Amino acid sequence: MVLIKKRLKTRLVYKMYDLIIIGAGPAGITASVYAARKRMNFLVISRDIGGQTAWSGDIENYTGYQFISGPELAAKFEEHMRQYKIPLKETEEVEDFRRDGDGFIVKTAKGEYRSRTVIVASGKRSKELGVPGEKEFKNRGLTYCATCDGPLFSGKDVAVIGGGNSALDAAIQLMKIARHITIVTSAGSLTGDSVMREQVETSPLVTVMNNARVAAVTGDKFVSGITIVKNGLEEKLQVQGVFVEIGLTPNSYFCTILEKNQIGEIKVTIQNETNVPGVFACGDVTDVPEKQIIIAAGEGAKAALGVFRYLIQNPLHG
Amino acid sequence: MVLIKKRLKTRLVYKMYDLIIIGAGPAGITASVYAARKRMNFLVISRDIGGQTAWSGDIENYTGYQFISGPELAAKFEEHMRQYKIPLKETEEVEDFRRDGDGFIVKTAKGEYRSRTVIVASGKRSKELGVPGEKEFKNRGLTYCATCDGPLFSGKDVAVIGGGNSALDAAIQLMKIARHITIVTSAGSLTGDSVMREQVETSPLVTVMNNARVAAVTGDKFVSGITIVKNGLEEKLQVQGVFVEIGLTPNSYFCTILEKNQIGEIKVTIQNETNVPGVFACGDVTDVPEKQIIIAAGEGAKAALGVFRYLIQNPLHG
Repeated sequence: MVLIKKRLKTRLVYKMYDLIIIGAGPAGITASVYAARKRMNFLVISRDIGGQTAWSGDIENYTGYQFISGPELAAKFEEHMRQYKIPLKETEEVEDFRRDGDGFIVKTAKGEYRSRTVIVASGKRSKELGVPGEKEFKNRGLTYCATCDGPLFSGKDVAVIGGGNSALDAAIQLMKIARHITIVTSAGSLTGDSVMREQVETSPLVTVMNNARVAAVTGDKFVSGITIVKNGLEEKLQVQGVFVEIGLTPNSYFCTILEKNQIGEIKVTIQNETNVPGVFACGDVTDVPEKQIIIAAGEGAKAALGVFRYLIQNPLHG
Repeated sequence: MVLIKKRLKTRLVYKMYDLIIIGAGPAGITASVYAARKRMNFLVISRDIGGQTAWSGDIENYTGYQFISGPELAAKFEEHMRQYKIPLKETEEVEDFRRDGDGFIVKTAKGEYRSRTVIVASGKRSKELGVPGEKEFKNRGLTYCATCDGPLFSGKDVAVIGGGNSALDAAIQLMKIARHITIVTSAGSLTGDSVMREQVETSPLVTVMNNARVAAVTGDKFVSGITIVKNGLEEKLQVQGVFVEIGLTPNSYFCTILEKNQIGEIKVTIQNETNVPGVFACGDVTDVPEKQIIIAAGEGAKAALGVFRYLIQNPLHG
């Protein structure tokens, strides 16, 4: 490529894709299956495959699977995608993308790619507590992924921070592993699905601390406790593990040309269009209020079919 | 109920549900799974279970199932729903629903039901040709369901009317059964997925007639042919079977209080709200442009979670 550029003394002409899909969670994978079935000439760029599904516990609300583990469902998604031999730039992370003539240039650390359209399906990542000790003890007793790291805490006392579905999911997973689990939530009560709440609230292994805030994570080489503030008073909880499950933040930092809401989610229409024609978004990175695997998958299909319509309605000139 | 009404000489008080879901296709079933997991007090009213999925051929684009037949996927959906022991009024058809105080009254031929909220997930049904002979030969060689009736046409010459995905799906199913298949489409070319188009176009068993319109269905006791108009000329095609696959029309006739688009689809927001607060809609009955199982399922989840939010934000007074 560099050679050609030098010889021709002209603008480097990259291959022009019909579509680049950024992300390969449920939304990006479903978009890729639909794009492949429409025989689009496209590329998927993602730092991982399966997205948050791969780190989820047991899943009971993906219609058609009464009961499946997150990693198993993610594996089924991946198989489904790979069946179509989709060109995939794995482990690449998109740094930026911008309009360029009839399409877009998508930039990663390893190169630049040109495409007529873009689907952003980059998902969300765990929010951090932002308290002293959090960075220091990350992966030394503090983790953002009960599915990945839960088994390391066999027979230990642990704390789960948060009170929504992710926190409940973590607690339920840990009920089979840890000695005792304290759920610490800043809300007045747990807020996840009743089905999960009941499991947690009736377990003799779980204590719930409402209206409580984590002020610090402490320890020596590994976590040995957390400092909690409740009713204005500080107390110390002795734990060997801390599972942070206080929510997620959208991976939209590279979407500088897109309109977002105040928490950084990309604004989309019911057809998954963004404010930039030719750019679609789907899944947890968007402002669709509910973050669910089945919803992300449905939105991925809509986005790919939206791209298909866009390409027909906006043919290349020349 | 009638006795109580007479004795009390007062307004009949029905049980008030949190939610009534109308329809049990992929959208309604997913909504019901989510509603059950939120422990809502709800009812599903539907004339069938599985919706159009139950009559579909092979499905390759429901993420997580690389390959599954329509009836199999519908069975998995039904199993998933029944696991939650959801109260279901099967074979009832909704005739009307209207606002009533803090909720709605939903009316079927068998009774009236009261609910705080409603999810309309009643799907679509096949469009009719509207030509002479259509009604006469319905179920006498003319059908709207290749999956249900295809096997009856073993070794016969048949026509599939239409050129989109449903028509291609019917043709592909019939390729394993019929002697010859003529696809008759009024469009200039087939319009479905490339993957399916290629299968059809490369089959020696299939002839495609573009720019052709069906003018009549003819026969004696059973279909013996169709009259086609092409380039202003009438011609007769000898077939023993006619599969009408010219599209679908929404089952929204009972939604008199809802805003619809010009083809009768219910207008929804990105959160599946309709123009009436407390009424949500999802799946093929809405104006979401693409009609796909995975999309309907995703929208069903959004609608149920929307209802959950609505009920919290609009508590009953008194």
